[in-house]
Amino acid sequence: MGRDFNEILDLYEKGEKFYLYTGRGPSSESLHLGHLVPFMFTKYLQDAFKVPLVIQLTDDEKFLWKNLTVNESKRLARENAKDIIACGFDVEKTFMFSDFNFVGGAFYENMVKVARCVTYNKVVGIFGFSQEDHIRKISFPPVQAVPSFPSSFPHLFSGMEQLRCLIPCAIDQDPYFRMTRDVAPRIGCQKPSLTESRFFPALQGESTKMSASDPNSAIYVTDSEEEIKKVNKYAFSGGQDSAELQRELGANLEVDVPVKYLNFFLEDDDDLEQIKKGYGDGNLLTGKVKNLLGDVLSELVKRHTRARAQVTGDG
Amino acid sequence: MGRDFNEILDLYEKGEKFYLYTGRGPSSESLHLGHLVPFMFTKYLQDAFKVPLVIQLTDDEKFLWKNLTVNESKRLARENAKDIIACGFDVEKTFMFSDFNFVGGAFYENMVKVARCVTYNKVVGIFGFSQEDHIRKISFPPVQAVPSFPSSFPHLFSGMEQLRCLIPCAIDQDPYFRMTRDVAPRIGCQKPSLTESRFFPALQGESTKMSASDPNSAIYVTDSEEEIKKVNKYAFSGGQDSAELQRELGANLEVDVPVKYLNFFLEDDDDLEQIKKGYGDGNLLTGKVKNLLGDVLSELVKRHTRARAQVTGDG
Repeated sequence: MGRDFNEILDLYEKGEKFYLYTGRGPSSESLHLGHLVPFMFTKYLQDAFKVPLVIQLTDDEKFLWKNLTVNESKRLARENAKDIIACGFDVEKTFMFSDFNFVGGAFYENMVKVARCVTYNKVVGIFGFSQEDHIRKISFPPVQAVPSFPSSFPHLFSGMEQLRCLIPCAIDQDPYFRMTRDVAPRIGCQKPSLTESRFFPALQGESTKMSASDPNSAIYVTDSEEEIKKVNKYAFSGGQDSAELQRELGANLEVDVPVKYLNFFLEDDDDLEQIKKGYGDGNLLTGKVKNLLGDVLSELVKRHTRARAQVTGDG
Repeated sequence: MGRDFNEILDLYEKGEKFYLYTGRGPSSESLHLGHLVPFMFTKYLQDAFKVPLVIQLTDDEKFLWKNLTVNESKRLARENAKDIIACGFDVEKTFMFSDFNFVGGAFYENMVKVARCVTYNKVVGIFGFSQEDHIRKISFPPVQAVPSFPSSFPHLFSGMEQLRCLIPCAIDQDPYFRMTRDVAPRIGCQKPSLTESRFFPALQGESTKMSASDPNSAIYVTDSEEEIKKVNKYAFSGGQDSAELQRELGANLEVDVPVKYLNFFLEDDDDLEQIKKGYGDGNLLTGKVKNLLGDVLSELVKRHTRARAQVTGDG
């Protein structure tokens, strides 16, 4: 789903430019595939449209919600940044920043402008804060709102204050951007457009979400080849209970987690179609499909690890 | 009155250092004497103790409360800064900043730390906000709190994170610093000390306050010699209604506004004593005392105008 996604694509076809904004709350040491998916999608968009991208690392948010120290929040932001860089964004067109390092100047001005348009009752309605919540939670939403406005980045978009913004994000971030779209015209800014992804499912199936605190739910970018074999044990299968039944009835592709993952990570569309057909017909067994996925994920994690090792931490 | 004022003076005598923090909310084009008094007192403290001083211009606050544009708030801050500089602070030891220009980095980190320690209920209790107030009002107090902590200014106080801070301010700012003193130990900082001045009275008398919106209540630093004559018409007098009665009964110095002003602005203590004695005895008439005050204020305003004209606006 999205908000004004088609509109921004139409405008782009007419020659109007836009930029991309996405982000990450650095709450854990290393990412899992569910974290990586929106960034891979964002990279796809950047490659397809050749547009600038800003990536916000909300280390201040994690300081507030996770009760970390400032230094620990900033350290996690740096570590997560390496994983994000390893996704291969166009370095000429990408600006990644941590809130603790970057808030100020034009960015702070926009924060204050947005905050003046939003009452306490409004944020309570959107985010469900209580009166015992600290005032920094209540005032955090503008921090996530303002990267939607090019005027927050004068060093990138000077003189382009009406440039449109497209935000690829997970659907749980929608409340922030509903608020942002509400405020934008009141402070003379363009509403950002959104393309929202559902959560990448946990190994346990569609209705679950990869969790950094349950290692059996997720594949981490730091998992070894051995650890990736948890796919065989934990990935929810749409295949039948026995080989005989599977050959007879075939797999239910709608609920099969390995197929969902392959849908995303297998690059060759013909290979994917062949697997889905054979598996659905019953010619391919569950174990075979899980092994195929294991190979794809191992390759992905190896490629990521190599790319991450080349991130120097300078600059 | 004050909070820990004597304590900081005792510590200073034992060789501990401190710094001064004061500020101004730039809500009007030019200052009146009531605005100038705390700065003159602050200059006295800086001269006496030879200590560093930070001056915060809360242009963000005025944007929020006065419904100005960001640019207008910043312009007023610059204009007010010229009046403040004209007070003659030690330029080597004074750092003046506008929030819109300076918030960020270590300053923002401290803002976030303070805000995490203060609940919505707490700020409502201290400042009386309502649920219909915008979230920026609710989150403003940490902006005024953090100049109390040397770690907010790493370019000034690097390695001196436990340096004590003394805040000369008007008494209406006390709620901000009660909150600040409450939070300080929880984030590993020293509590600031305070010395709080009452408001400088309006011409109409002790129970009133100079108002920028009532020109007859105040002497402005931009008043002409002619305009300063409003002292004769509007200054509340403790003298008697007729010259005869005045010679017989003398003036009530306790309520006399010209005497209150002379107390502050007349530099020669002997001259001041002579005036108070003659006026109290009935030998001096009200008109004469008002004329004396007019001369002193004209001289003060002329000196200020000359000093302000030398402020270039660079640097």
